[in-house]
Amino acid sequence: MSEQIVDREQIARALAEDIGRGDATTLACVAESAQAQGRIFTRRAGVIAGLPIVTEVFRQVDPRIQVELAVDDGTHVAPETTLVTLSGPARGILTGERVALNFLGRLSGIATLAAQCVTATEGTRAQIVDTRKTTPGLRALEKYAVRMGGGKNHRFGLDDGILIKDNHIVASGGVAQAVANARVHAHHLLRIEVECDTLAQVRQALDAGAEAILLDNMPPAQMREAVALIRAQRPTTVIEASGGIGTDPAKIRAVAETGVDLISIGALTHSVANLDLSLEFIAAG
Amino acid sequence: MSEQIVDREQIARALAEDIGRGDATTLACVAESAQAQGRIFTRRAGVIAGLPIVTEVFRQVDPRIQVELAVDDGTHVAPETTLVTLSGPARGILTGERVALNFLGRLSGIATLAAQCVTATEGTRAQIVDTRKTTPGLRALEKYAVRMGGGKNHRFGLDDGILIKDNHIVASGGVAQAVANARVHAHHLLRIEVECDTLAQVRQALDAGAEAILLDNMPPAQMREAVALIRAQRPTTVIEASGGIGTDPAKIRAVAETGVDLISIGALTHSVANLDLSLEFIAAG
Amino acid sequence: MSEQIVDREQIARALAEDIGRGDATTLACVAESAQAQGRIFTRRAGVIAGLPIVTEVFRQVDPRIQVELAVDDGTHVAPETTLVTLSGPARGILTGERVALNFLGRLSGIATLAAQCVTATEGTRAQIVDTRKTTPGLRALEKYAVRMGGGKNHRFGLDDGILIKDNHIVASGGVAQAVANARVHAHHLLRIEVECDTLAQVRQALDAGAEAILLDNMPPAQMREAVALIRAQRPTTVIEASGGIGTDPAKIRAVAETGVDLISIGALTHSVANLDLSLEFIAAG
Amino acid sequence: MSEQIVDREQIARALAEDIGRGDATTLACVAESAQAQGRIFTRRAGVIAGLPIVTEVFRQVDPRIQVELAVDDGTHVAPETTLVTLSGPARGILTGERVALNFLGRLSGIATLAAQCVTATEGTRAQIVDTRKTTPGLRALEKYAVRMGGGKNHRFGLDDGILIKDNHIVASGGVAQAVANARVHAHHLLRIEVECDTLAQVRQALDAGAEAILLDNMPPAQMREAVALIRAQRPTTVIEASGGIGTDPAKIRAVAETGVDLISIGALTHSVANLDLSLEFIAAG
Amino acid sequence: MSEQIVDREQIARALAEDIGRGDATTLACVAESAQAQGRIFTRRAGVIAGLPIVTEVFRQVDPRIQVELAVDDGTHVAPETTLVTLSGPARGILTGERVALNFLGRLSGIATLAAQCVTATEGTRAQIVDTRKTTPGLRALEKYAVRMGGGKNHRFGLDDGILIKDNHIVASGGVAQAVANARVHAHHLLRIEVECDTLAQVRQALDAGAEAILLDNMPPAQMREAVALIRAQRPTTVIEASGGIGTDPAKIRAVAETGVDLISIGALTHSVANLDLSLEFIAAG
Amino acid sequence: MSEQIVDREQIARALAEDIGRGDATTLACVAESAQAQGRIFTRRAGVIAGLPIVTEVFRQVDPRIQVELAVDDGTHVAPETTLVTLSGPARGILTGERVALNFLGRLSGIATLAAQCVTATEGTRAQIVDTRKTTPGLRALEKYAVRMGGGKNHRFGLDDGILIKDNHIVASGGVAQAVANARVHAHHLLRIEVECDTLAQVRQALDAGAEAILLDNMPPAQMREAVALIRAQRPTTVIEASGGIGTDPAKIRAVAETGVDLISIGALTHSVANLDLSLEFIAAG
Repeated sequence: MSEQIVDREQIARALAEDIGRGDATTLACVAESAQAQGRIFTRRAGVIAGLPIVTEVFRQVDPRIQVELAVDDGTHVAPETTLVTLSGPARGILTGERVALNFLGRLSGIATLAAQCVTATEGTRAQIVDTRKTTPGLRALEKYAVRMGGGKNHRFGLDDGILIKDNHIVASGGVAQAVANARVHAHHLLRIEVECDTLAQVRQALDAGAEAILLDNMPPAQMREAVALIRAQRPTTVIEASGGIGTDPAKIRAVAETGVDLISIGALTHSVANLDLSLEFIAAG
Repeated sequence: MSEQIVDREQIARALAEDIGRGDATTLACVAESAQAQGRIFTRRAGVIAGLPIVTEVFRQVDPRIQVELAVDDGTHVAPETTLVTLSGPARGILTGERVALNFLGRLSGIATLAAQCVTATEGTRAQIVDTRKTTPGLRALEKYAVRMGGGKNHRFGLDDGILIKDNHIVASGGVAQAVANARVHAHHLLRIEVECDTLAQVRQALDAGAEAILLDNMPPAQMREAVALIRAQRPTTVIEASGGIGTDPAKIRAVAETGVDLISIGALTHSVANLDLSLEFIAAG
Repeated sequence: MSEQIVDREQIARALAEDIGRGDATTLACVAESAQAQGRIFTRRAGVIAGLPIVTEVFRQVDPRIQVELAVDDGTHVAPETTLVTLSGPARGILTGERVALNFLGRLSGIATLAAQCVTATEGTRAQIVDTRKTTPGLRALEKYAVRMGGGKNHRFGLDDGILIKDNHIVASGGVAQAVANARVHAHHLLRIEVECDTLAQVRQALDAGAEAILLDNMPPAQMREAVALIRAQRPTTVIEASGGIGTDPAKIRAVAETGVDLISIGALTHSVANLDLSLEFIAAG
Repeated sequence: MSEQIVDREQIARALAEDIGRGDATTLACVAESAQAQGRIFTRRAGVIAGLPIVTEVFRQVDPRIQVELAVDDGTHVAPETTLVTLSGPARGILTGERVALNFLGRLSGIATLAAQCVTATEGTRAQIVDTRKTTPGLRALEKYAVRMGGGKNHRFGLDDGILIKDNHIVASGGVAQAVANARVHAHHLLRIEVECDTLAQVRQALDAGAEAILLDNMPPAQMREAVALIRAQRPTTVIEASGGIGTDPAKIRAVAETGVDLISIGALTHSVANLDLSLEFIAAG
Repeated sequence: MSEQIVDREQIARALAEDIGRGDATTLACVAESAQAQGRIFTRRAGVIAGLPIVTEVFRQVDPRIQVELAVDDGTHVAPETTLVTLSGPARGILTGERVALNFLGRLSGIATLAAQCVTATEGTRAQIVDTRKTTPGLRALEKYAVRMGGGKNHRFGLDDGILIKDNHIVASGGVAQAVANARVHAHHLLRIEVECDTLAQVRQALDAGAEAILLDNMPPAQMREAVALIRAQRPTTVIEASGGIGTDPAKIRAVAETGVDLISIGALTHSVANLDLSLEFIAAG
Repeated sequence: MSEQIVDREQIARALAEDIGRGDATTLACVAESAQAQGRIFTRRAGVIAGLPIVTEVFRQVDPRIQVELAVDDGTHVAPETTLVTLSGPARGILTGERVALNFLGRLSGIATLAAQCVTATEGTRAQIVDTRKTTPGLRALEKYAVRMGGGKNHRFGLDDGILIKDNHIVASGGVAQAVANARVHAHHLLRIEVECDTLAQVRQALDAGAEAILLDNMPPAQMREAVALIRAQRPTTVIEASGGIGTDPAKIRAVAETGVDLISIGALTHSVANLDLSLEFIAAG
C-alpha cells in the first residue's frame, strides 16, 4: 500500500539537490568496484514511515544496490532496531545515504508523534487528524506519515473540501452568507464546514446548514457545551476541535473527552523532530 | 540580497500542492470583487527569514495583491510584531495564506533556533554551521535561514567539498588511503576534511595531509586535547566539532570553549518548530 | 474572471504542436516588416467561450500583436459577428491563427451546446451539469465552456467527490458495504453519491446513508417514482439524472420535469461540433 | 506499428488531470486486495483506434493489470464487440477507466468518421486527408485515427510544408510574389501549394510554379473545370479540394468525381462524436 | 529578426550548468553593491552571430545589467572591435560572462567559417548549405550562424524533407523502390532527394522521379558530367554536392564551378574554432 | 564507469531536435519489418569517447536494436576500426544514426586532442586540464572526454572552486581584499586560487594566502621565474599555467618544462574537429 507514496520526480529532485555534479568524496576515495554491506537502524524507539522511499532512493542512485526492508511502515520499533539492510556497490550506498535518511527520519518523526497523540485519545470517539500546516512540497508524504502513526487525514488541500474560516466570514459578510454562497457555487459532492470561536457562531453555523463545525481555540468546558448544543440540534454534524492543542497528551485527552469527533493538530507536521537514524557499514571491500 | 532565495518553480509547486484544482471555499464564498487588508504577524519572539518568498507567493496567486514587508529577513522581532501587510483582492490573500505561512514559519523557526545557538558561542572563535540534514527540497532555503540567524553554512552538497566520513574510510581501506585517493582524483580547488572519532584518527588524518578535521562525538575534554594536538602540528587546519551536540546552549558553550573553529548542528534543520505566525484580515468589503 | 482558464504551458504546447520548427510558409512568403489588421468572426450563431486563450496565443507568438476582444465569454452572438480584432505584425497573426481558432471553436461549440440544453430546462429545478467524459488534457477548459453556456459543473475529477458506480458496488460487495467503506476512509468533507439503476437500489442507497443519488438510465416514469421515494424518505438528498440523455431538448425536458436536481450529459463534451469561425485579413501592407 | 502513438507524458498528464490527489471513491470503497476482470466493449459499430493508449493507461495506473487487446487498431467492429479484456487489481481498473475510454472513444469516433468518408470515394482517384483543425494537444493521435480509418494525412504542422493561403497572398502582395518568396527562402525539399478560390487564381498559381493547388470552396462544376485546366498545363501538379465539404457522403462523392487527388475535411477532427464505449466488470472479488 | 533564436530554457540550462549552486568566487569576493562597466570584444576578425543570446544571458542573471549591442549579427568585424558594452551590478556581469562568451564564440566561429566558404563560390550559382552534423542541442543556433555568415540552410531535421541515402537504398531494395515508397507514404508537400555515388545511380534516381539529387563524394570532373546529365533530362532538378568537401576555399571553388546548385559542408558545424572573444572591465567600484 | 555520463533527458532532447515529428524518409521508404546489421567505424586514428551514449541513443529510438561496443571509451584506435556493431530493425538504426555520430564524433575529437596534449607533457609533472570554455549544455560530456584522453578536470563550474580573476580583482579592490573576502564568505572546504599576470601579482597572491596560483599569459621564462618564487615561499601551492597556450605540442612542452603542476587549455573544448566516423549497413532485408 505504501508504494503509492513514492514520487520519483520528488526523489530525483532531492538527490539532485544533495549530489549536484557528483559525490566528490565518494568518487575520489572509494573504488568503483568496492562492495559494501550496511544497515539503517534507529537509535530511538518510534514508529517508522517512509521505507518505500528508501528503496527508491537507492534504486535511482544505483539499481544494483540490494535494499531489504526489515520492517513495514507503521511498525513501532525499539531503539537499535535494524530497519533496512543494504548491499552492493559501496559508492552508491554512500551517495544515497543522506537523502534516504532525511526522508525516513522526518516521516518517522511525524509517525512517532502522531502515534503518541493517538494513544492519548484511547477510549474516546475522537480521531487525531492533521492540518495543511505541512512542509511545502512534502504534504502527501507527511499526511501518509500521520496515517502510519494511526492518525487520520483532514482534506488534502484547498480543492477537496469547504472549510469556512474567520477571514472567509469577514470577506463574505457573515456566516449565513458564506454558507449560502458555498451551497450555490460549490459542486454537490462537497460538504460545508464552518470554523466557530463562540457558541453564538456555532448556532449561526447550524442554522445556516453547516454539515461540520470546527470549534477553534475553545477551552474544554466551552467545547463540551458546544458539543452538547450541536448534538441536540443536528446529531449528524461532524465536530472538529482545533487551535493550539499541540502534542501534549494531557491536553489532547482533555479535548478528546469533550466528545468531539476529530482533533486536528498542526504541530504533527510543523514542529517535529526527526527520528534519530544512522547508516553504518557492516562490511566493505 | 535575500531575493536570490526565491525559486519560482518551487513556490509554484507548493501552491499547486495546496490549491490543486482551486480554492473551493474561497471561490464559492467570497465575491470576485471583494477587497481586503490583512497582516501577517508573529505570536512569539524570533528571527524572521523567508519574507521574499511571501512576496512571491502572493505575486503568483494574484499580482494585484500589494505586499509590504514591515521588517527585513534577519530581524529579531518581539511577539505580536507585524511582519507583512497585504491589501488587494480578498480571494487571492485567502488562497495564498497557508503556503506563505508554511514557508515563513519554518524558515523563521530555523533562524530563531540558529540565533539561539550563535548566542551561546559569543566570545569564542567558534562559528555555528549547518549540516546536510535538511528537509528534502528545501536545502537552499534552510541554509539561508541559518545565515539569517547568524550561522554560517557548511558545504551545500556532496559536490562542493570533500568530507571523508567513517563509511568512506571503511570502504577505501583507511584514512591514509582515503586522503591519498581524494588528492589524486578530486580537482585542485577542493580541500579535504576527515571525520575523526579518536585522537589516533586525528593523528592519522594530519599525517595524511587533511586540511580540515571533524571531531565527531567527542566529549569536551577529549575535544580540547584534539584541538591542542592539531594546533601544534599544523595550525592552519580547520577544526570542526559535530555529533549530537543539539541545540542546548550550555552544551554548545562547552564545545565552543574547546577552541574549535566550527560547530555543526543537524538539529538546526531537522528538529525545529515553526515560528507561530498568523494572517488576519483587518478590513474587507 | 475568465482569465483563470489560461494555462500558459498548455498554450505553449499547442503552439509547439502546430508550429514545430517554424511557420515555413509565413517566414518564406511574408516580409518581417509586414503589418496586418484582421478579425476573427463567427459564421454561425452561438455562445462564445475561450477568448482569453486567443489573447494569450497571440501574446506568445508575438507580444506586439494588438488583440481586442469585441465580446465577452458567455455572450450569445449572431452569425457574422466579429469576436476579436487583431493588428500588428502579419507574420505572427498568420502563425497563431489556427491554434487560436482550434481552441475558440471547440470551446464555443461546447458553450453553444450547453446553452441549448439549459434552455430546455427552463422553469424546472433541474440544472445541466457536465461529466468526466472530456477531451484528455482539456477538462478545465471544457468545464469552463459548460459554465459559459449556463451549465454547472459536476466534480472535477476522481479526487474531489465520492461517486459510487456499478463497478464499485460489484468490487466492494454491495451498496451498503460500499457506502460504509466510503464513510470510514474518505475525509469528512466529502459527500457520498450512489449510482442506482433500480428503485431497489435507490432504497438501499438511502438506507446506507447516501447524501446524493444518481438515477442511471431510468425512463422518465420510473425516474419520477424514484424522485418521490427519495424526497419522502430524506428530502435533503441531491438527485441527479444521467445515462444516455444526450442533447435532444425534448428528451432533456422530459427528464427535467421528473423533479431531479441535476441532469448530467456526457455529450456536452464528447460529441460536439466546433463553432464555425474564421480569421480574415482586413488590411495588410 | 501503432505503438509509436503512445506519448507517455501525455497519458500521464491525462491521468493526473482526472485522478488529481487520488481516486477518492475507489480508495475508500474497494479493498486494496480486490481483484477484478472486466472488458471494454463498443455499443455501436465503428472503426477502432487508440488501443495501445489503453494498454499504456493501465500500465501507468498499475502495471499488474493484464490488458489484452481483442482486436487491432483499424478494425471495423460490430456493436457489442469486446475490444479489450482486463484483469488484475480492481482499484487500478476503476481508476484508469475514464481516461482510457476518453482517448479510445474520441479516436475511434474519428476513425469511424474517416472510414465513412473514404467509402464515399471508392473507385475515384481521390484520397481523404485531414487538416490542422485538430484538438489542441491531440494532433498526432487524431491524424493517426484518420489513417486507421483509411484516410491519409496532410502536412503535420506549419513547418513541414508550404501552403500559401488567402491571407498569405494578401500579406505578400499577390500569388506570384508569394510563390517567388517561398522558392527563395524555404529549403529545397519543400514543395509549394497555393490555395485558389477562382480559375484566375489557379492560372496565376500555375504560372508562378506552384507544385500543388488547393481548390477552395468551389462548386463541383467549377472544380471540374479547374482540374481540366491544371491537368492540361502541368499534369504532375497535385490537386486538393477543400472548404466546407463536410462528412456527407453524397457531397464527398460529388467532389471526388471531379478528378481531384485529395479531399481535405476539417470535420474529420473538429466535429466528431465519440464512439460509445463502456467498461464493465465481469467478475470481482 | 535574430531574436527568434533566443530559447530561454536553453540559456537557463546553460547558466545552471555553469553556475550550479552559485558563483562562489564572485559572491565571496565582490560586494553586492559593486557596479562595473565592461565590454565584450573580439581579438580576431570575423563574422558575429549570437548577440541576442548575450542580451538574454545577462537578463537572466540580473535584469538590472544594461547590455548594449555595438554591432548586429551578421556584421564582419575587425580585430579588437567592441561587440557589446555592459554596465550594472558587477556580480552579475562576472557570473554571466562565461556562458555569454561560450555561445557567442561558437556561433561567431561558425558564421566566420561560413562566410569564408561563401566567398569561395562568388560568381557561381552554388549556394553553401549546412548539414545535420551539428552539436547536439544547438542545431537551431548553428543553422542561424550559417545564415549570418551568408550560407543557406538544408532541411532542419529528419521530419521536414525526404533525403534517401545509401543505407535507405540498401534497406528498401533499390533506388526505384525507395523513391516509389516515399511517394506513396510521405505527404504531398515534401520533395524527394536521392544521394548518388555514381552516374548510374543518378540515372536511376532521375528515372524514379527524384526532384533533387545529391552527388556524394564525386571528383569535380565526374560531378560536372552528372550535372550535364541531370540538366539534360530534367532541368528543374535541384543538384547538391556533398561529401568531404571541407572548408578549403580552392576545393569549394572547384565544386562550385561544376554547376551544382548547393554545396553542403558538415565541417561548418562539426569542426570549427570559436572566435576569440573577451570580456574586460573598463571601470568598477 | 562511463555510464554515469549518460543523461537520458539530454539524449531525448537531441533526438527530438533531429527527428521532430518523425523520420520522414525512413518511415516512407523502409518497411517496418526490415532488419539490418551495421557498424560504426572511424575513418581516422583517435581516442574514443562517448560509446555509452551511442547505446542509449539506440535504446531510446528502439530498444530492440542490439548495440555491441567493440572497444571501450579511452581506447586509442587506428583508422577503419569498428567501434560499434548494430543489428535489429532497420528503421531505428537509420533514425538514430546522426545523433549517435554527432555525440560520438565530438567527444572522440576532444579525447583525441587531449591525448595529443598529454603526450606533449610526458616526463614532466604537468597535467593537462580543461577549462569552462565548453559547449553550452555539453560540459559534463566534454570534461569526460578530456579524462578519456588522459587529461584531468579543472573545477566543473562556478560553484565548486574559488578562482579569482582579473575582473574580480578589479571589482573587489585588489588581490589582498579579494582573497580576504573569499576566506570569510566561502565555506571552509574550498581552496582559493588567484590569477596572476605578473610576478608582482604572484607575490601579492602568496602574501594574501592563496593556495593555488594561475600564471596567465606568461612567456615560459617568466613562468619559470614565477614557479621558483612560489616554490620558495610556499611549496604546497598548486601552480597552473593558462592563457592562449593552445594545442601545439611544442608550445605545451615548453610550458610543461617550467615546472608548473597544471596546464589548462581552452582549445581542448572550444576549437576541436569531430573525429570522422560513419555508420554503414553490412546487411539488410
